Amino acid sequence: MPPAQDVHARAPSRGRLRLRSVGLSGIRKPLSVQRGGRAHHLAVTFRVAVDLPSDRKGSDLSRNAEILAEIVDETATRPVASLESACSSIVRELLARHPYATEASVEASAEYFLRQGISDAKRSFEDYTLLAEARGSRGENGTVTVARAVGAEGIGMTACPCAMETCREALTREYPLLADPQFASLPMISHNQRNRTRLVFELDGDTAIEVDEVIAAVEAAQSSPTYAILKRGDEGQVVLNAHRHPKFVEDVLRDLLASLPERFPGATDATTVRASTVSEESIHKYNVEASHRASFAELRATAGR
Amino acid sequence: MPPAQDVHARAPSRGRLRLRSVGLSGIRKPLSVQRGGRAHHLAVTFRVAVDLPSDRKGSDLSRNAEILAEIVDETATRPVASLESACSSIVRELLARHPYATEASVEASAEYFLRQGISDAKRSFEDYTLLAEARGSRGENGTVTVARAVGAEGIGMTACPCAMETCREALTREYPLLADPQFASLPMISHNQRNRTRLVFELDGDTAIEVDEVIAAVEAAQSSPTYAILKRGDEGQVVLNAHRHPKFVEDVLRDLLASLPERFPGATDATTVRASTVSEESIHKYNVEASHRASFAELRATAGR
Amino acid sequence: MPPAQDVHARAPSRGRLRLRSVGLSGIRKPLSVQRGGRAHHLAVTFRVAVDLPSDRKGSDLSRNAEILAEIVDETATRPVASLESACSSIVRELLARHPYATEASVEASAEYFLRQGISDAKRSFEDYTLLAEARGSRGENGTVTVARAVGAEGIGMTACPCAMETCREALTREYPLLADPQFASLPMISHNQRNRTRLVFELDGDTAIEVDEVIAAVEAAQSSPTYAILKRGDEGQVVLNAHRHPKFVEDVLRDLLASLPERFPGATDATTVRASTVSEESIHKYNVEASHRASFAELRATAGR
Amino acid sequence: MPPAQDVHARAPSRGRLRLRSVGLSGIRKPLSVQRGGRAHHLAVTFRVAVDLPSDRKGSDLSRNAEILAEIVDETATRPVASLESACSSIVRELLARHPYATEASVEASAEYFLRQGISDAKRSFEDYTLLAEARGSRGENGTVTVARAVGAEGIGMTACPCAMETCREALTREYPLLADPQFASLPMISHNQRNRTRLVFELDGDTAIEVDEVIAAVEAAQSSPTYAILKRGDEGQVVLNAHRHPKFVEDVLRDLLASLPERFPGATDATTVRASTVSEESIHKYNVEASHRASFAELRATAGR
Repeated sequence: MPPAQDVHARAPSRGRLRLRSVGLSGIRKPLSVQRGGRAHHLAVTFRVAVDLPSDRKGSDLSRNAEILAEIVDETATRPVASLESACSSIVRELLARHPYATEASVEASAEYFLRQGISDAKRSFEDYTLLAEARGSRGENGTVTVARAVGAEGIGMTACPCAMETCREALTREYPLLADPQFASLPMISHNQRNRTRLVFELDGDTAIEVDEVIAAVEAAQSSPTYAILKRGDEGQVVLNAHRHPKFVEDVLRDLLASLPERFPGATDATTVRASTVSEESIHKYNVEASHRASFAELRATAGR
Repeated sequence: MPPAQDVHARAPSRGRLRLRSVGLSGIRKPLSVQRGGRAHHLAVTFRVAVDLPSDRKGSDLSRNAEILAEIVDETATRPVASLESACSSIVRELLARHPYATEASVEASAEYFLRQGISDAKRSFEDYTLLAEARGSRGENGTVTVARAVGAEGIGMTACPCAMETCREALTREYPLLADPQFASLPMISHNQRNRTRLVFELDGDTAIEVDEVIAAVEAAQSSPTYAILKRGDEGQVVLNAHRHPKFVEDVLRDLLASLPERFPGATDATTVRASTVSEESIHKYNVEASHRASFAELRATAGR
Repeated sequence: MPPAQDVHARAPSRGRLRLRSVGLSGIRKPLSVQRGGRAHHLAVTFRVAVDLPSDRKGSDLSRNAEILAEIVDETATRPVASLESACSSIVRELLARHPYATEASVEASAEYFLRQGISDAKRSFEDYTLLAEARGSRGENGTVTVARAVGAEGIGMTACPCAMETCREALTREYPLLADPQFASLPMISHNQRNRTRLVFELDGDTAIEVDEVIAAVEAAQSSPTYAILKRGDEGQVVLNAHRHPKFVEDVLRDLLASLPERFPGATDATTVRASTVSEESIHKYNVEASHRASFAELRATAGR
Repeated sequence: MPPAQDVHARAPSRGRLRLRSVGLSGIRKPLSVQRGGRAHHLAVTFRVAVDLPSDRKGSDLSRNAEILAEIVDETATRPVASLESACSSIVRELLARHPYATEASVEASAEYFLRQGISDAKRSFEDYTLLAEARGSRGENGTVTVARAVGAEGIGMTACPCAMETCREALTREYPLLADPQFASLPMISHNQRNRTRLVFELDGDTAIEVDEVIAAVEAAQSSPTYAILKRGDEGQVVLNAHRHPKFVEDVLRDLLASLPERFPGATDATTVRASTVSEESIHKYNVEASHRASFAELRATAGR
């Protein structure tokens, strides 16, 4: 069946304004990444879009699906270096095949497995979320610039420092010997819970950020990482670790942000991070959360405080 | 526009077998219930279905939506006694308006708010889930029998008894004085987390079950209920309560089941309960869960063990 | 149990930077709104947050839950005028009870039922989503300014104008008589699907926006509204209506935006709208979407084009 | 830290009844399957459980995570033949390592990508869902029997046969020439939508079922399969295909069931299938669904009717 005349290229019947974003969402694709010596087989959810000029009725959306098929499907045989490099390729191709567009965006998220463990003998795959974005702009002279972002989310646990002190006081009234200085460092009961923390780098220029290091930063900022395999003694060790590092979501966020200058020395001052953290409070039916956005310049200025 | 000839009433073109269930799902309706002195305004998700004989192409699905509109919409001005009584009315009407059907089912779930608090001064609305089902059968002589189920789900918290003992041993090695008998009852740190527990009664005959009592049973079986408003001292009290009642999901389930004969003395031996409980483990990224189904006869036979 | 010393008020141990947002999310509350002659009983999901100065370890989150309880729970006996007015009250109270905060935000969403129908005899409750936001800032002199937003999302359907033309051409090759001018306006088969369209007004000053009118604008911009109760003839009428108004997501968005100056004459030029629309494509496993943000000044400038 | 004494092995404090199911849910694992010449890298959600005798307080849940790590993680280097064979191995290991258990169950679901296309030049990965289950029982003499199930879910589209006839009548009144016999087979407008159809085989003995064939059966029963890449002409072809095969959910289910005896000739009479289908109605805000369960003996008895 030969194609009909191009309905999309017509003028819109009404409301002739440029639209900021028209595209596909919720499209799932398998993407293979080769990193270190290992292939990661990701199932990615993509959102891809371009803007639409005021004189055009529709965006050629089938091109978006074709681009994804060409670039992503091909990784099955030829893996790419990273999810964010795939996003950059896609955003450039979006601008190439939508000549009427001046802006394009790609957002990608994918589950990501790393072998982790409380000890080498108990390593097993833990699941994380990878995040990548690319935003392209076509300048007046036709040159395309691409802004990239890359990040990850990790699930760990937090133990509440406030309830811990309240319980210490209450139990000391009941067990006066706990007032003895030898118990000053005894970790006391508190509420603890799953915490999801996300860190995304808005990259400046060619800065490369290693997502495994992003995940390491996230897990170091929580009260404790968590693991699939924990034998009885190990459970105690995770619980102790969490209660020796009791943290509000505010603490998780600040500890995370404060760790970044040292952990990512190569990031330029203009590199900006978005960080957010959610604790699924065990003592409430709702969540507690905190979020921030700051440049490395700002983070470096407050470093050590 | 006058209706076309009835496509649904034709013979199926292929595969002439009776289908067990054809219906609507995910339909949302506001339903008003008058209980005690108070009106509850529920937003209910309904699933309604009937079977379909082998000689009929389609089910008259618009009748399902009409029945819901008539019975449920009307409660806006004339509240019903309960969600389950609305389900019973709907199931009877389904069989009345689908004369070719021999079975009908209604499943309903709705968020439900109760004012609760750790103290009277801190009461606030806490959210629960109401569940109701009705299944109708048309007998050979045309009489309709209806089996009803009613239940609820509540979110509370559990603290792990095993990690608590492991931590007690580990901390006693570090703080030998903890071995002193006076500390035998000192609650020790453990992992704790959100727990969702659900209890559904498959009712026998006219037995009535009060859902607020179902919620009370669920919350009593968890390590502790949880609350929206907790000032600093209250947080400690909930944490202490949970750590003084450390429970595996197995314990939650057994304590819940064991409590039922005394809590619901009017339930007949043939009344059957389905119970399930899920703990969103703080030390793992996955959940732990347990489920059971038993008649009151069985529960009474094991009572006191 | 008397409260412990205030852990939140201490200095943070590390990372002394101001955090943009700390608060609660996913908290559910029943809220009663009195509008026209009718009470609407909403179950609202709230997200409430304030910023946190660099010298303070934690935010007094229990105050957030108390504020919600006081303002929202009270509507059970004394309904408020609208969801957005409740958000404004909450945001002011957040700044009052977090004296260290300079910014506060409230986001609320709730299911909302309206009686609608393809004809008066077939009216029934249809479900929509209400959206409201309030953002408060404390100025240098202590005065609080509040920016409000209000909107709604509605589900309708779209029919694709491009596939319709392709099918017209294909069927005309097969049935040459269809080329006869009398059939020029015959609606042809196309793919059609659920469409979710959202429109949010960032209010300027005291502008009031009626959410029922927002919903009317959304439904008028889709190919057709949809209904719970449709008898056979009605189904045909909805299908015809949709195919007589075939629309891309781009068309839905532009028709919606173009309709606003006339529909909301009282909105000031500085009033800004965010609009987005998603079609759950029947011919793909993924969605197609478009979004835009524009001021009424911009909308008025393009009106009539 | 050496393990504490085994809390799980103690007697329960209350409610000494056997629990039907205790285990893990929502645990994610990467699993590699080698099929045909190709490796499939699945991200699987597992639910694994065993029963618990009345005299034991808790189930050794860490063993479940260890089994998954050993069997599933190992497939990263040594792929297995299928998801269901992994489930069988896991269920046997559950009974081996929970010597007190008499029943074990594994449920697994995973996204699955197949290269499909409306033509060879437009092939791209389409996403499906794989489903597998294994249930093991330990007999009196200690022998373990395992019942397996395997299936898949596919998204396609349905077009409504009833609205199509209503529209034909309405349009014929408006365009009388449509009554001409030459137009009897002209496909008319109707509502169409995403349809999700699921088919699971409860396997009898060693029967092997090829999941790609399950997916083929599902897609053949819908009005049309759907594709990621559709150029303008292709869209028309899919729309035409769907409207030439208009189907209620009842038709999808019956056509699917009727096709099975011929499509799976090797299935024994005792092989039983569970089939369900959901259409996300474009003209309603709710879904329409149908489900059935039947043995191949029953399906063969009605074949050809």
